[in-house]
Amino acid sequence: MERAYIVGAGQSPFGRHPGDSYRSLMLTAFKRAVDSVDAAWDCTIIDEVIIGTLGVGGRQVGLSAPAISSHLGLGSTPSSRIENACAAGGTAVRQGVLAVQAGVTDLVLAGGVEVMNDMSPKVMRRWLGVSGETEWERMAGTTFAGVYALMAEAHMEEFGTTKEQLAGVAVKNHRSAAANPDAHLRFECSVGDALEAPLVADPLGLYDCCPVTDGAAVVLIASEAMAYELTSRPVEVIGAGQAAGSVGVYDRSTLTSVPATVAAAARAYDQADVGPEDIDFAEVHDCFTIAEILAYEDLGFCAEGEGGQYLQSGATLPTGSLPVNRSGGLKAKGHPIGATGVAQVGELFTQLRSEAGPRQLSDINRGLAHNVGGSGGAAVVHTLERASA
Amino acid sequence: MERAYIVGAGQSPFGRHPGDSYRSLMLTAFKRAVDSVDAAWDCTIIDEVIIGTLGVGGRQVGLSAPAISSHLGLGSTPSSRIENACAAGGTAVRQGVLAVQAGVTDLVLAGGVEVMNDMSPKVMRRWLGVSGETEWERMAGTTFAGVYALMAEAHMEEFGTTKEQLAGVAVKNHRSAAANPDAHLRFECSVGDALEAPLVADPLGLYDCCPVTDGAAVVLIASEAMAYELTSRPVEVIGAGQAAGSVGVYDRSTLTSVPATVAAAARAYDQADVGPEDIDFAEVHDCFTIAEILAYEDLGFCAEGEGGQYLQSGATLPTGSLPVNRSGGLKAKGHPIGATGVAQVGELFTQLRSEAGPRQLSDINRGLAHNVGGSGGAAVVHTLERASA
Repeated sequence: MERAYIVGAGQSPFGRHPGDSYRSLMLTAFKRAVDSVDAAWDCTIIDEVIIGTLGVGGRQVGLSAPAISSHLGLGSTPSSRIENACAAGGTAVRQGVLAVQAGVTDLVLAGGVEVMNDMSPKVMRRWLGVSGETEWERMAGTTFAGVYALMAEAHMEEFGTTKEQLAGVAVKNHRSAAANPDAHLRFECSVGDALEAPLVADPLGLYDCCPVTDGAAVVLIASEAMAYELTSRPVEVIGAGQAAGSVGVYDRSTLTSVPATVAAAARAYDQADVGPEDIDFAEVHDCFTIAEILAYEDLGFCAEGEGGQYLQSGATLPTGSLPVNRSGGLKAKGHPIGATGVAQVGELFTQLRSEAGPRQLSDINRGLAHNVGGSGGAAVVHTLERASA
Repeated sequence: MERAYIVGAGQSPFGRHPGDSYRSLMLTAFKRAVDSVDAAWDCTIIDEVIIGTLGVGGRQVGLSAPAISSHLGLGSTPSSRIENACAAGGTAVRQGVLAVQAGVTDLVLAGGVEVMNDMSPKVMRRWLGVSGETEWERMAGTTFAGVYALMAEAHMEEFGTTKEQLAGVAVKNHRSAAANPDAHLRFECSVGDALEAPLVADPLGLYDCCPVTDGAAVVLIASEAMAYELTSRPVEVIGAGQAAGSVGVYDRSTLTSVPATVAAAARAYDQADVGPEDIDFAEVHDCFTIAEILAYEDLGFCAEGEGGQYLQSGATLPTGSLPVNRSGGLKAKGHPIGATGVAQVGELFTQLRSEAGPRQLSDINRGLAHNVGGSGGAAVVHTLERASA
């Protein structure tokens, strides 16, 4: 198995960009990724393109990956689309890592993109819904907010988690987003704001939910030889784990854990030969505030049931022992479906290279990215480490 | 790079199955693939699932790969959907090969599935169209038959290819399909039948076009150690090549060749260290009869412009020097989008194991599978070889 390294990363600004196309957003992200590479280089040496996107909004559906490659000037480079709902981006990164590990490719563009704000709310609700379990949840009227509300209720009942703790996730991540020029919701909020916001699906209010975001992200994954040709400061992908889970929550044994996250994390830790105690910071999948609480537990950052207290302890603040979602997370940076998992890995790269500007974390050598599809039908976990010069 | 082997293959019957679901068809294909493995084995050792499907017909769209894995009893196995329009299946096989080559997985299920006949013709036309180039072709009214008709016209004008030669492809492939119990159109046709059939897009008539087919296919891809645990007769994947092309024909330099096929074949030949002269038989992408003529040339089986004569020479008949589409091809075996490229590789496996029954070819050691997305936005070529015991 060859070793795989990230040598560049870029993203478009996340936000409402209904006038942009999936190709123009990808081009913005790609240019930034190209510019982030230390060496002067010819980007046509990229020899594999993998694009994560849900992308079924009535525009180019089939062959969107080749269409993107043409637009980026990457000609006949093998180009494939990966889909795993909201984990499409993380899945694309992992497939790119596999291509490098296979020794078949030297430099992979793993990207993700979504345009969501060009649809009417009605079309978009239907479009998003198709990633939910169809027969027993979606067609019965359940929404994603509804499914995560069930999880939140169960966690509150079983472990005494409070609405204030959920609000604490929103407050933390909004504050971080305010320091991220590419975030969608760049404003702070208070616990009171969150608690007084309109209910979306009891107990989740408006501030417990991520926004509907357009955006694109790109990371460049290289073999060892290629990595050190392009930079003296690559970041190694030391672990990549993926797992599937039941698409619906109706046939899971638990509502207070996402089994796919637990399985994916175990694989990523195992491949990297590290444990949760070795992780310095993380980007986790906080599509709803409860999801970040669950992630703390499922990733092993704290014990089962203690996610709420862990948040309240301050451990995951930028100044804490394990800062989580310094980018603002899905909650406030935004969640352009296919782009999310790619941007998470990009954030780890940028932080580990000490290039994150006002949101730069200190004393970090190892980070973790965690991306979930739907309510847990898929999960992907990557662990990254600052490589030696 | 680890070596990759096929150890099992299965497909559902191809045909009109509007009462089946993508999961039930996959289960049929999976059971047959499981049964095709020589050793007694526990299929839960599969450690990666990759599903090729276009799959946007209003049913489960996001997370269809995990939904399939759950249905097959493969629990938390990492599961991802790949899409490259009509090349989704070939792309899934190649991603599976990469996962084995990386040394990360020992046994991959690469599958493909499509259900098309549960939609109204109007919905299906719109659904299929989304794989065509959007801005300059689809929205201007061009259909896939129309685009391939342009290619046929150009080939006729430049090289003197005739309607009789196109019909010859249909006659050959229908005759082969009649010997394939899993084919969709199991009846023979004459050159006269083809020439007198209603026009679809001049010069292409009904018999020049593949049918609208439901079906699923699975191949099992193993590492060397795993392969020889499961069988003494594996088939090695000696070359896997993929390429992208412009999604629309409007900005290609030629209408008489598919550049993505040429590039993908060059990569597959190069990795396998073989040339077209070393190929004993092939399954090529004959969505329209002209596509098989173009494939002969683009894969190097004959010289540029000579595809029509090559067909007429009988070289690609089951008794010829390089039998093509002994399964019946997309033309008559059928073309359930995502399943096609997987079933092609399955056919090579079955033939190379001498298990093809009445359609078995003789004196074969090496085969080629060729899968195209859209009109050439993507192409995937695999070369397979009988491995030593």
